[in-house]
Amino acid sequence: MAKSLEKDFLYHLGWSTDDDLKGTFGDLKFVCTGGSTTRMEKFAKYILGVLSASGLQLDLPTSVKNLCRSDRYVMYKVGPVLSINHGMGMPSTSIMLNEVIKLLRYAGCTDVVFIRLGTSGGVGVEPGTVVITEKAVNYEFKPVYQLPVLGQLKSWDATLSTAVANEIKEQHDSKDGYDAVLGNTMGTDDFYEGQGRLDGALCDYYTEQDKMDYLQSAHESGVRNIEMEGNCLASMVSRANFEAAIVCVALLNRLHGDQVTTPKETLEAWEERPQQLVARYIVKKLKERQDNQ
Amino acid sequence: MAKSLEKDFLYHLGWSTDDDLKGTFGDLKFVCTGGSTTRMEKFAKYILGVLSASGLQLDLPTSVKNLCRSDRYVMYKVGPVLSINHGMGMPSTSIMLNEVIKLLRYAGCTDVVFIRLGTSGGVGVEPGTVVITEKAVNYEFKPVYQLPVLGQLKSWDATLSTAVANEIKEQHDSKDGYDAVLGNTMGTDDFYEGQGRLDGALCDYYTEQDKMDYLQSAHESGVRNIEMEGNCLASMVSRANFEAAIVCVALLNRLHGDQVTTPKETLEAWEERPQQLVARYIVKKLKERQDNQ
Repeated sequence: MAKSLEKDFLYHLGWSTDDDLKGTFGDLKFVCTGGSTTRMEKFAKYILGVLSASGLQLDLPTSVKNLCRSDRYVMYKVGPVLSINHGMGMPSTSIMLNEVIKLLRYAGCTDVVFIRLGTSGGVGVEPGTVVITEKAVNYEFKPVYQLPVLGQLKSWDATLSTAVANEIKEQHDSKDGYDAVLGNTMGTDDFYEGQGRLDGALCDYYTEQDKMDYLQSAHESGVRNIEMEGNCLASMVSRANFEAAIVCVALLNRLHGDQVTTPKETLEAWEERPQQLVARYIVKKLKERQDNQ
Repeated sequence: MAKSLEKDFLYHLGWSTDDDLKGTFGDLKFVCTGGSTTRMEKFAKYILGVLSASGLQLDLPTSVKNLCRSDRYVMYKVGPVLSINHGMGMPSTSIMLNEVIKLLRYAGCTDVVFIRLGTSGGVGVEPGTVVITEKAVNYEFKPVYQLPVLGQLKSWDATLSTAVANEIKEQHDSKDGYDAVLGNTMGTDDFYEGQGRLDGALCDYYTEQDKMDYLQSAHESGVRNIEMEGNCLASMVSRANFEAAIVCVALLNRLHGDQVTTPKETLEAWEERPQQLVARYIVKKLKERQDNQ
């Protein structure tokens, strides 16, 4: 943390230590994040409705407003919940996390839980299944995040909260009309070659068999879905001494193909599944907190 | 390329081979790209004005319209120029490039030049300087792009067009009021630790001296600016047999600090500098092409 800075400008969020960060963000307890701008706006509206109807004593806005002052992210605050997008991939995610972690520290926030609400490619699960991550692993199925720093490849443990994952899993009801499973999530640096797809522009140097061998190995190691941010998020949030969980819906089963061919309306309905489970979890935790006060 | 697909859905662009890709995109000759959505919309408007006033015989729209059918990117077509954003980082960039390269092939486009119009941190150059990339290098100052594929770290040459870089450099006029230099550009996977910044949330394991030693080594190797996409773009575009160039303005001199403290209005004016040089280059090439017909 930049202790020597007189003023710290969080460049990609557009907020600085000259702003009233404590007054604006001091009550945050949950950072909910996902790739898409639209999805995080929808989640902000959804959680506003859920919290408004919850009977909890909360300081809620009447509508949601984008608080990000650059065009790099969108960011909504709904009482104790920040809904912010991270773009696609770990580099974009790491920029957001650096600046949000600093923002939380300046605002004096404690006991914050980060939850990624994502989309993913399933591995051996039915399309529409929600995967709650046990271990966030890299391309070698190891729970680490690697980043070159000052000319050297650094490696950190990618640690998630087992307790939070289990509590989110418990929010799933057999009547919900979809499956929710615990499993490992593989984070990659690309959607095409990086995930062994054969429908990219430059994938002509490996075969269907090579792809299936890799996906089968992933499945045998415990991987149930593939996305592009998990191990970065797990590592950075745990290094900052906060807890993290990852809840993604699988848009397809990669053991059966590469293309996302499900109609847009169905995909949008599926994207609401992680939101539903996470909203239930947030209400439960806020009620526990209020009961303990 | 996915030859066996009956229909190819370019998921993050929202276009497929069921659309009239040839009729809509068949005349493209330049793909201009940058991280920010706003910047690429501004560039689309700017190049529309420049091309309208150029006297060239072109099929131009009366205004610009976002043609991306998902919220992952924005994409504008202005005659032979596509202006599309790539988000932040190589993973986000590689998704866009995979789908745009496929789109160009389906549309039958030939001799396309890709140009990144970016922002960057300068290394030993004055803030506001435009750096035109000679070599796009990685964190070891090597002109390669690395990506794990099917469990193995793959490495490709990151090759840019020297001819295009030099021609863009020639568009710079000593009366422009800013410097334009040729130099190497380092692509990193993060903005904070990945670029040796000390103002990130988790940078407490290295010192100012460590940072300066690394930045000085980068400078001695020929690096004049740091960004987060260059070597991925260079590698992928050359693998697809198109030409690429990278033209970035330096928002600060990293040898003098980490924070971007220049006022927003000044930064926005600086962002127009790469656009100006690239617009001149595009007009020149289109005039040459028309004269040769």
